[in-house]
Amino acid sequence: MKLFIGEIVEKTAYLNEEESHHFAKVLRGKEGDIVHVTDGEGSLAEIEIYSITKKRVEGKVLNIKREFEKKNYQLHIAIAPTKTIERLEFFLEKATEIGIDEITFLQTFHSERKTIKRERLEKIVQSAAKQSLKAYLPKVNDMVKFNDFIKQNFEEATRCIAHCQTVVTRISYKTLLQSKPNNIVLLIGPEGDFSNEEIALAESNGFTGISLGHQRFRTETAALQAVFATDWSLSD
Amino acid sequence: MKLFIGEIVEKTAYLNEEESHHFAKVLRGKEGDIVHVTDGEGSLAEIEIYSITKKRVEGKVLNIKREFEKKNYQLHIAIAPTKTIERLEFFLEKATEIGIDEITFLQTFHSERKTIKRERLEKIVQSAAKQSLKAYLPKVNDMVKFNDFIKQNFEEATRCIAHCQTVVTRISYKTLLQSKPNNIVLLIGPEGDFSNEEIALAESNGFTGISLGHQRFRTETAALQAVFATDWSLSD
Repeated sequence: MKLFIGEIVEKTAYLNEEESHHFAKVLRGKEGDIVHVTDGEGSLAEIEIYSITKKRVEGKVLNIKREFEKKNYQLHIAIAPTKTIERLEFFLEKATEIGIDEITFLQTFHSERKTIKRERLEKIVQSAAKQSLKAYLPKVNDMVKFNDFIKQNFEEATRCIAHCQTVVTRISYKTLLQSKPNNIVLLIGPEGDFSNEEIALAESNGFTGISLGHQRFRTETAALQAVFATDWSLSD
Repeated sequence: MKLFIGEIVEKTAYLNEEESHHFAKVLRGKEGDIVHVTDGEGSLAEIEIYSITKKRVEGKVLNIKREFEKKNYQLHIAIAPTKTIERLEFFLEKATEIGIDEITFLQTFHSERKTIKRERLEKIVQSAAKQSLKAYLPKVNDMVKFNDFIKQNFEEATRCIAHCQTVVTRISYKTLLQSKPNNIVLLIGPEGDFSNEEIALAESNGFTGISLGHQRFRTETAALQAVFATDWSLSD
């Protein structure tokens, strides 16, 4: 099954510009072909292509599924990007495959990487979502300063900050998941961990300090573990 | 903390040849330096270097820890290697970091990759073990035919085969982990899954069919999930 990203408007669906190019030029698709399209917001349609132009491939909706494989939780991970970008890219691919809704890159006190190419990372997420047939496309946000991020309004979410400071009270993420939260915002720090000031500031903004387990993982491993554990514990 | 692989004999420790070269030539280590050495079998020693030759760096054991961070379970994963070797390499790195004891590469009916470079993969595992300070070095076995592998004597282990055939009875891996097995041999199939014949043959050799969850993952993602879930469920 081949999945494309586009728009679905009643009985008609369009592949977006890049996807149209891919369909027509790379895959040499034809009128009459049957493909799948998602709007990235939960709808998945099977369509029959009837029009191919350079910028727009259009089809008739044969059938449509709403809220396709909708998860029973929302997970937003804000992560200090790794020095080696491949590690972050692998995390993004795997997180998309397992289940994540939103990703933000954090600029923290100990961050080794100060910039990211959001568009490239977004493409990795889109590609992983297509490959693993996701009808919900994870949102990839720009890099943001730690202090600005935690001041955002996340009132409906269970907010947590994963860190390794044993002198500060933390609860285990396993315990937190037992309360079956349905909306989680989770902060993952850089190799050098969050600073004490960052942890204190997060706590004063409603974030709970958590421990991801008995081991001290690399940034991308910790983030992956959080994504796996959330799916493992909360999915039906 | 810098960790090297070598031998520990009573009050003396040696770095192995490659590690000796790395210490002396790459890191420009000196006599009097304090480093850590593991034998890869649970012992971790702090040593003071007193002799540096081309092939052997030797030191006096200052203190030693036995069964350093020993896990309370044994996990052996036998996996059909992925077409793209980077995916397998990433899995090996992460599995070493999280916790695995033995890895075997399976040649299966639907395998896309028929050969692997064991030495290269072993280096990746060693490097990950050093980086994440493991005193137990995972064993990396050669490629073996599926039929030969399952006939080995694994009588003391809980044996399972992860597959996606819904017509065959499977139990969930989550349920299996609730019985707190302390020795697991787990088979992970290729993109095209194990064949029906392979599943039947495994079952007749004492392997239980399991499901890793509600999603259908890529090979390396399924294997990673199994490693994470085992650690998450069995570690204290």
